[in-house]
Amino acid sequence: MPLKIQTPEWVKDAVFYQIFPDRFAKSLRLIKPTNIEPWETPPTTFGYKGGDLYGVLEHLDHIQDLGFNAIYFTPIFQSACNHRYHTHDYYQVDPLLGGNPAFFALRDEMKRRGMKLLLDGVFNHASRGIYYFNDILENGPNSAYLDWFTVEDFPLSAYDDSKPANYVAWVGLRALPKWNTDNPQVREYIMKVAEYWLHQGIDGWRLDVPFCITSPGFWNEFRERVKKINPEAYIVGEVWWDSTNYLQGDQFDAVMNYLFTEPVLQFVGQDHLDRRHAISGKSYDPYPPIDGEHFAVKIEKQVFRYDWEITQAQLNLLDSHDTPRLITICSGDKASLKLATLFLMTFPGAPSVYYGDEIGLPGADDPDCRRTMPWTERENWDQELLSIHKQLIGLRHQYKALRRGTYRGAGANKTCYAFSRILGKERLIVAANVGAQSETLSLNRLESLPEGTTFQVLYGQGQASFEGGRVSLTLPPREGMILRID
Amino acid sequence: MPLKIQTPEWVKDAVFYQIFPDRFAKSLRLIKPTNIEPWETPPTTFGYKGGDLYGVLEHLDHIQDLGFNAIYFTPIFQSACNHRYHTHDYYQVDPLLGGNPAFFALRDEMKRRGMKLLLDGVFNHASRGIYYFNDILENGPNSAYLDWFTVEDFPLSAYDDSKPANYVAWVGLRALPKWNTDNPQVREYIMKVAEYWLHQGIDGWRLDVPFCITSPGFWNEFRERVKKINPEAYIVGEVWWDSTNYLQGDQFDAVMNYLFTEPVLQFVGQDHLDRRHAISGKSYDPYPPIDGEHFAVKIEKQVFRYDWEITQAQLNLLDSHDTPRLITICSGDKASLKLATLFLMTFPGAPSVYYGDEIGLPGADDPDCRRTMPWTERENWDQELLSIHKQLIGLRHQYKALRRGTYRGAGANKTCYAFSRILGKERLIVAANVGAQSETLSLNRLESLPEGTTFQVLYGQGQASFEGGRVSLTLPPREGMILRID
Repeated sequence: MPLKIQTPEWVKDAVFYQIFPDRFAKSLRLIKPTNIEPWETPPTTFGYKGGDLYGVLEHLDHIQDLGFNAIYFTPIFQSACNHRYHTHDYYQVDPLLGGNPAFFALRDEMKRRGMKLLLDGVFNHASRGIYYFNDILENGPNSAYLDWFTVEDFPLSAYDDSKPANYVAWVGLRALPKWNTDNPQVREYIMKVAEYWLHQGIDGWRLDVPFCITSPGFWNEFRERVKKINPEAYIVGEVWWDSTNYLQGDQFDAVMNYLFTEPVLQFVGQDHLDRRHAISGKSYDPYPPIDGEHFAVKIEKQVFRYDWEITQAQLNLLDSHDTPRLITICSGDKASLKLATLFLMTFPGAPSVYYGDEIGLPGADDPDCRRTMPWTERENWDQELLSIHKQLIGLRHQYKALRRGTYRGAGANKTCYAFSRILGKERLIVAANVGAQSETLSLNRLESLPEGTTFQVLYGQGQASFEGGRVSLTLPPREGMILRID
Repeated sequence: MPLKIQTPEWVKDAVFYQIFPDRFAKSLRLIKPTNIEPWETPPTTFGYKGGDLYGVLEHLDHIQDLGFNAIYFTPIFQSACNHRYHTHDYYQVDPLLGGNPAFFALRDEMKRRGMKLLLDGVFNHASRGIYYFNDILENGPNSAYLDWFTVEDFPLSAYDDSKPANYVAWVGLRALPKWNTDNPQVREYIMKVAEYWLHQGIDGWRLDVPFCITSPGFWNEFRERVKKINPEAYIVGEVWWDSTNYLQGDQFDAVMNYLFTEPVLQFVGQDHLDRRHAISGKSYDPYPPIDGEHFAVKIEKQVFRYDWEITQAQLNLLDSHDTPRLITICSGDKASLKLATLFLMTFPGAPSVYYGDEIGLPGADDPDCRRTMPWTERENWDQELLSIHKQLIGLRHQYKALRRGTYRGAGANKTCYAFSRILGKERLIVAANVGAQSETLSLNRLESLPEGTTFQVLYGQGQASFEGGRVSLTLPPREGMILRID
């Protein structure tokens, strides 16, 4: 008998803000080492900008005022790397971020504000500096932890670039030795890390490259142990493709929904899509442009790919630390970002906004997509983008139909797409015209609408007419709208 | 005006047991990684035997029954090395030792028993695996911690044995990068580590190679901060030579008294001294043998080298993890160990016995001097050695004169040496004959002894006669004694 699939209720009501901690905000409360790059300089592959968790704490108002009620952090544990995917110690928050005290202060303030906190769990690989691997480096075949990784021969070529890595490493990168998760001790070690931070009050784990861990039952055990501590903890895997195998109720609650991202970018970007940025070699492919009818097929396939319980808990996103920013992929075209944000905030699944998108921060593929948040240059922030983020997030919170209502495609033509979100008496239509001309879209029959039905524009521009039982929408070029059926 | 020198009172009453944690005892309470060497096998340079702190806890009876009331541990912090001088994390007790929970359990039980706990502070250098150095390895000139070490050029040759280390490392060993203690942030980091463990209840720090840290005022600040937390904390430096500069009351309380070790070995060992082991290249030189008159000069120079307050707090030892064991230097001759132990337990300064010496465990220079304690082979333990340890430690505790009494040379000839320890009415004479023949030693006039003075042999063999106001001792070959003047 198939499992009854359950996902955390709060996720269905969550709007996430994704933070890359080295770049979001730098607090004066924390004394930093001297060799930190100036905040205003472009990101480098190896340099630190010195953002920290007290900085996040001090800017919670910015986040909360926009309506976000959850934060997803890329890794925060001690790591000799600005993105911190090279874990050096799973039990310590990085000293540059303020260490565990900063984390606990932030956690407490977020709890006080009713905000949820999602951490990035990098459990497939560690770093070549972590104690357990370092022990093999130092002691060779005598290491106590010899079977915690998969070593092919000695001496290890951990720092010898003239030879291939002679141990199993993530995509062969010698800096990232892969845990031997077939070893029950390693498995237990990772489970205990996951449990520890749940006991410290986090609300879930975003899992980095979880598909690389193929030890039988690993993620099932992970879910069991996580949910035992907090049944409402969120488990979201970084899987860019069809994740049916992980989403049967026994492993993850959701994945990072790049299969939402891809068609949205293709549709909203149109001629603005910049090939150089869109074709990034990442595991999504937001190129070439697609028309409204194609979009309808592609996006609805995604909406109905998984159990509805899963779909409502998906982590929907437009970009991340792993992709160029949407506005850069779209050649700086703000309308693309506005249209995409409209879809993001009205779709089933929890929206996740990558810090800076709300002010139009640009950024090509990493490291450029990890620029610092320009707090001292607020005069350059895009106020309209800020405003539409606030407005759309507000509507999502206001209308439960946007979070839990049914989803149905409501019409599509060459440049337009519309869908409905309905929950009881809340009946909303979301529509967009990505074309360069004004366009009229005749909607499918939704249900029998009585004569005299009226329509309220909640957001955006456009007009609705109702005649002969059918709704027609007229949308200006590159605009979208949310309509309430009264 | 010179400082009034103060040292911890408890140290003057302490008898230390020195433990090398990987080799002392292995508890069944702790699950270990699989690649641990069998307990019974000889030490290797790189292998682990799997001793842990629960093992120590389970054997406190053995230690306390012998009379020890303090334990000095070689390093216990997380380190990718069996001796743990390659610190990987100063805030974590090594997982193989049971981690911080095992340490806290041990600390609590030792406190309950009234035992003192001395940790080994390795503050001159870290390891190439520690986060801060690893950050330089990973990020090169971009590292936030670039000036926490002294890097000469890039790329670092941290693991490239074909090139010399291009950063400052302890005696050039690339595994042990030297902290840049001129950097105030590094200094603060080390001070905070020292403070942290004092707050966790340790009773002092043994300082590894402290003479390698020459940043002005470093050890003065260290003392101030340590003593502020616990004025009775013990600070004992690993300095093998004259340490007058450190022992003015403003830096250390004491040093490891290898200047006691050296003449004692030379005197008690005599023809038994094995050149191969005695000439070890260490910073003491217990070879060649010396006669009683030479010993008198050399040992009394050491007794009166420093302020008496310091001398009473010195850490006296016969061997350690850094030297061959005395019994091995002395070709397995048990009498040498007995005679040396007699001196150790009756001298001013806290005796420190290296685990296993009490059962006659042999061991050449390291790693051989770090053999495992043979708990399952008790039938091979030297019961006489155990017994004399218990007896001599008992007398030290019983007679305050042995701990705080005045010291005066009482006589010496070619093979004999005697000294007095006097405190009020407690008047003790300690004497030894290291020669192969029975010998009579006429003592110096101690003080006016009335006719009818009697002598009680508290320990050992020999006879005392008292005639014409002078005491003569007759000692069997290679025997010593403690006499009480009644």
